[in-house]
Amino acid sequence: MGKKISFSSDYTKGAHPKILQRMTETNFEQIVGYGTDDYCKSAADKIKKACDAPDADVFFLVGGTQTNQTIMDMLLEPYEGVVAAQTGHVAAHEAGAIEFSGHKVLTLPSIPQGKTCSSDDGKKAPIYNDQIGKVKAEDLKKLLVNFYDDDNHEHMVFPGAVYISHPTEYGTLYSKAELEELSGICKEYKIPLFLDGARLGYGLMSKRTDVTLQDIASLVDVFYIGGTKVGALFGEAVVFPKGVPTAHPIPVIKQHGALLAKGWLLGLQFDTLFTDNLYMDISKNAIDMAQALRDKLTDKGYQLFIDSPTNQQFIVMENDRLKEFAQRVGYGFWEKFDDNHTVIRLATDWATTSDDIDELMKYL
Amino acid sequence: MGKKISFSSDYTKGAHPKILQRMTETNFEQIVGYGTDDYCKSAADKIKKACDAPDADVFFLVGGTQTNQTIMDMLLEPYEGVVAAQTGHVAAHEAGAIEFSGHKVLTLPSIPQGKTCSSDDGKKAPIYNDQIGKVKAEDLKKLLVNFYDDDNHEHMVFPGAVYISHPTEYGTLYSKAELEELSGICKEYKIPLFLDGARLGYGLMSKRTDVTLQDIASLVDVFYIGGTKVGALFGEAVVFPKGVPTAHPIPVIKQHGALLAKGWLLGLQFDTLFTDNLYMDISKNAIDMAQALRDKLTDKGYQLFIDSPTNQQFIVMENDRLKEFAQRVGYGFWEKFDDNHTVIRLATDWATTSDDIDELMKYL
Amino acid sequence: MGKKISFSSDYTKGAHPKILQRMTETNFEQIVGYGTDDYCKSAADKIKKACDAPDADVFFLVGGTQTNQTIMDMLLEPYEGVVAAQTGHVAAHEAGAIEFSGHKVLTLPSIPQGKTCSSDDGKKAPIYNDQIGKVKAEDLKKLLVNFYDDDNHEHMVFPGAVYISHPTEYGTLYSKAELEELSGICKEYKIPLFLDGARLGYGLMSKRTDVTLQDIASLVDVFYIGGTKVGALFGEAVVFPKGVPTAHPIPVIKQHGALLAKGWLLGLQFDTLFTDNLYMDISKNAIDMAQALRDKLTDKGYQLFIDSPTNQQFIVMENDRLKEFAQRVGYGFWEKFDDNHTVIRLATDWATTSDDIDELMKYL
Amino acid sequence: MGKKISFSSDYTKGAHPKILQRMTETNFEQIVGYGTDDYCKSAADKIKKACDAPDADVFFLVGGTQTNQTIMDMLLEPYEGVVAAQTGHVAAHEAGAIEFSGHKVLTLPSIPQGKTCSSDDGKKAPIYNDQIGKVKAEDLKKLLVNFYDDDNHEHMVFPGAVYISHPTEYGTLYSKAELEELSGICKEYKIPLFLDGARLGYGLMSKRTDVTLQDIASLVDVFYIGGTKVGALFGEAVVFPKGVPTAHPIPVIKQHGALLAKGWLLGLQFDTLFTDNLYMDISKNAIDMAQALRDKLTDKGYQLFIDSPTNQQFIVMENDRLKEFAQRVGYGFWEKFDDNHTVIRLATDWATTSDDIDELMKYL
Repeated sequence: MGKKISFSSDYTKGAHPKILQRMTETNFEQIVGYGTDDYCKSAADKIKKACDAPDADVFFLVGGTQTNQTIMDMLLEPYEGVVAAQTGHVAAHEAGAIEFSGHKVLTLPSIPQGKTCSSDDGKKAPIYNDQIGKVKAEDLKKLLVNFYDDDNHEHMVFPGAVYISHPTEYGTLYSKAELEELSGICKEYKIPLFLDGARLGYGLMSKRTDVTLQDIASLVDVFYIGGTKVGALFGEAVVFPKGVPTAHPIPVIKQHGALLAKGWLLGLQFDTLFTDNLYMDISKNAIDMAQALRDKLTDKGYQLFIDSPTNQQFIVMENDRLKEFAQRVGYGFWEKFDDNHTVIRLATDWATTSDDIDELMKYL
Repeated sequence: MGKKISFSSDYTKGAHPKILQRMTETNFEQIVGYGTDDYCKSAADKIKKACDAPDADVFFLVGGTQTNQTIMDMLLEPYEGVVAAQTGHVAAHEAGAIEFSGHKVLTLPSIPQGKTCSSDDGKKAPIYNDQIGKVKAEDLKKLLVNFYDDDNHEHMVFPGAVYISHPTEYGTLYSKAELEELSGICKEYKIPLFLDGARLGYGLMSKRTDVTLQDIASLVDVFYIGGTKVGALFGEAVVFPKGVPTAHPIPVIKQHGALLAKGWLLGLQFDTLFTDNLYMDISKNAIDMAQALRDKLTDKGYQLFIDSPTNQQFIVMENDRLKEFAQRVGYGFWEKFDDNHTVIRLATDWATTSDDIDELMKYL
Repeated sequence: MGKKISFSSDYTKGAHPKILQRMTETNFEQIVGYGTDDYCKSAADKIKKACDAPDADVFFLVGGTQTNQTIMDMLLEPYEGVVAAQTGHVAAHEAGAIEFSGHKVLTLPSIPQGKTCSSDDGKKAPIYNDQIGKVKAEDLKKLLVNFYDDDNHEHMVFPGAVYISHPTEYGTLYSKAELEELSGICKEYKIPLFLDGARLGYGLMSKRTDVTLQDIASLVDVFYIGGTKVGALFGEAVVFPKGVPTAHPIPVIKQHGALLAKGWLLGLQFDTLFTDNLYMDISKNAIDMAQALRDKLTDKGYQLFIDSPTNQQFIVMENDRLKEFAQRVGYGFWEKFDDNHTVIRLATDWATTSDDIDELMKYL
Repeated sequence: MGKKISFSSDYTKGAHPKILQRMTETNFEQIVGYGTDDYCKSAADKIKKACDAPDADVFFLVGGTQTNQTIMDMLLEPYEGVVAAQTGHVAAHEAGAIEFSGHKVLTLPSIPQGKTCSSDDGKKAPIYNDQIGKVKAEDLKKLLVNFYDDDNHEHMVFPGAVYISHPTEYGTLYSKAELEELSGICKEYKIPLFLDGARLGYGLMSKRTDVTLQDIASLVDVFYIGGTKVGALFGEAVVFPKGVPTAHPIPVIKQHGALLAKGWLLGLQFDTLFTDNLYMDISKNAIDMAQALRDKLTDKGYQLFIDSPTNQQFIVMENDRLKEFAQRVGYGFWEKFDDNHTVIRLATDWATTSDDIDELMKYL
């Protein structure tokens, strides 16, 4: 419970104070369970309005892996798997939650070969541009074409849905054109497109995005608006813009152990986040702080690992310096770069302050 | 979000104010995730001490169905099922969460035939005594003997664990002698005994129990201390008194979508509940209020359905009266009694006051 | 590999000689795999004709448990279970194959309380009449009504299909009226009716049935024609009279490890069995032999356990006599009757001869 | 059911005539079911002797996918996956049977980049050498080291077993040194090594192998001896040289729908194949024929795709020629080579004759 400052992730703090305040205020109201309450209804209405998706079905679940697993089970036939980037959360970091539910994750390459950025301003260019971590339309198309071309495809796992994260696990973003292209392919093959928005706010508030919440709601079949990493204690708001495809979503959720008894705790949080633009405002804060951090880092000559337009910034650090740094600052180990360097992640969040950045820079 | 008073269940309110207070106080601490933090450690230590089980492993999960599903998967081999009362939560009200994980629930009868109580004090006796809802040792023994006697038992589902709830779904309790007998049978057959303590506090504080927390820790292989229904916003503390039987519990939990990112929220709550006897004190309140309610009900001539020693009380009410009653009070529909009567549940909780009881009695 | 005669079951011998002959004749033909060959097509055509179901889809699988598991997975949504008699094969004797696939078996009582037969001809009446082992329409209706009446049914397993066996595991049969009633209820609730016909031939050829193969094809949504117990080496022919409800049945079958590489071996067997009425003729033999056996048993004063109209006959035998008997004859242990008596099964089959019956009677 | 000759696969014919003969001879013996008979025992004894593995447990299953799925479920904990080549059967061509059982397949690259063979005899060299399709020890080691080095590995799927096929799906073979290296790594990490021997005979009889059946039995934890593709109607003999790791294998098999009622049909076939060296003799025939075919192909200037030492040979053919060829000969489509060429598979088998090869060469 380090006193030291931490930029290790965007889920190291509690919730926006307004959320705790409302929880405290409503603590002794007696409310019906399992998400059938008015707070959930109100939150869903606000989300549907923000998405410009009046026919949407909205559900509130507790965490990301749970959400990915439960929703995927609603989308997929037993003989179908989900297509994802090899670095997608469902492929790499959910302990096999998708497979536990009986479905294969069909992976596409998402780490470009070789350095992908070039620089023309005299500063060090990041090593990877903002394509890292993403599903490429051409790869998806190729997978689908090859699958159906294969005479033996009935002996293989059918691609039954496509999973993308936005921002990705690497902080990168799809452009609107890219989303449209993926969406078009999915429509052509009649498979749903699922967007994991665990960090959605940070994607929407990026200064380098042309994608709005309404765009997402019109282009994908299901997505979720992350709360855990964006101002809530916990919670993910799942949105099916055109309606949920299963006749009975509640038993599916219950069966996965994902139906929170006091469901109103989720409704209350999202109702708060979607009142007076709070979700967007606090997301913007993280982006502003990340931009400030990035500027200071490049000014100091740090090598960026990825040209990330969102709240996660990645730098390459010498192992010797890292040892010292680790005494003062919490960071996220990302990967070994070479024998003498390590890639680390520094994440800002909805509550990061300029003082935090200043404090951090003391050790950089 | 009715203004009207509700006794429909014990999970209609938020959390004990001390919990919200500590959440607010620690809101901007930066804490490591996934239950690896010091609050979880502290809570686990306090629980181990309260259980007199220094070698215990303690995990914190979010809800009951999730806990039952995840733990059962740790206990059972793929070819094993769990023995439970036909009215047990895992058998009846979890939308098939155990089967979703690949395991059968092997049920034993738990509703006695015919009226089981008699009265000698001039008052109406409850219809069922406190055996309803329980696994009987003799039934369990018979199931096990018959299973292994059957030449074809390798074509059947092996009984691989025993599930009991304490209090049961009907508010009843096992005596220490009964627990010892069940525990003995389980030891004889080398199958773990699992105790669902979603309402454990209300069982421990019942005036009609001889079972202590330490007894449970010494007699069962795994149990959980319910938070959701006993003063927490959410959360169940799973205790393996002799240690967890799987080499890697975390991936199992993660795979079930049950690993809370901000795990410290669970630790903080249980740390609070297990400080200064809070869990027991607030549980006792529910019991005191239930006793007061029960006395008033019998005084007014209401027919008790079950001779329940805990916080859930069940009465038989005429349908016509029930219609009126329902305008003023939230209650739990339990079951149809006959064409003109209904069994309803009235549950007190950690926060019920004497005023609440008085208010309720106005409508009874 | 006892030299002694056996009536222990109807799957103790190989196949009808015509099947082995055709296998031998076609042994070096080179045939395409996985059931896409002409023998499978021919067999399917003959079966469709025999069923008077020109739009049927027909698949050939290897064994009964495999078939039950695979087909059930095609019928059920993830949140649905299958309703079956408590004594149904899927409920009792498949090692949890249905649960392994994620689905609960919802059981209905199928063993009547107390003696159900009476006699008026001076002979001992069987203990159970021919209702044992069956799903009663009223029980099914009640389960469905209660389920949808329950406010909490979204927390319970949805009844998503009905499983019946015909003949049942106790050798009993549904009447046409009973099948119509079950079919009507299933239609009303829009859930498929599945008929396990592992011993179908013996049901169709019973002298006490009014149910034809065409009746079954018109009343149920899917059924299978058992080969393993009726003249084939192995194999079950699955018939969906109105077509298979899943877009891609082959990957479902493959995924269950149930797609036989040399699928033509199944087609060849069923093509043979459905040529020149062979399946019905050899089934009739088992029935004739069972009738002869039954007459001799009752003449000798044996207590029939069930008034079975098919090839399985059950008698109650003194344990002392049974010990001797067991030296000479293979029999099926069914259950303990009381401390001194045992219920045993004697099954005739497609190849049983009068000489076999005479030999058996020597020891009775 | 083309009259035309086919080299499309090694499972286009029935069984070695001795097998059909013995099935016919024993057809009316009455034999106990589910693999508990004396033919299974005898076959198991012969296999244990051939493997020089007196403590082995041997089971007989029906097909390859079924075997892979069932055995993997015996080896893996719920949180574990199996490591395999990306081209391994379990990864690519079983419709997700492993994932259906809840386990992830962790894949390693198995197709080398670029042309891997060189020639010094004036003939065209094959495009790939015999490394294609194999798990490389260094890749496996790297996967394991990286996994345990990763701080987040408890959020990832544990590598719980290693799957290799021998011969591989590309006809290639591991050397004894390679098997020893893989075995050593598995021992170091305490994970079982599983060898899929669907075509084991053709591997053992290759003229370019130094691996014996006894080597395999001493180096792997479980393997199977393929019958379906090597002289049996169907059937795979699973061998656990050091004993089966689960207390109750039969219910696991049953639960997968994989327990054949007339199990003796499997025992009888393997008893025949392991009498008088039949399995090896007929495997040798396929190898001899493949060698003859290969010689003729290279003589005629055909481009070999893989330097395959076993019964599967792969050549690159012009699409125009292929169209004609397809009129006369059954072949296996393997993959598109370029816009004008296709890779096809020609497989010999236990029953291929020199006349068959001559007939084939007429069209090449």
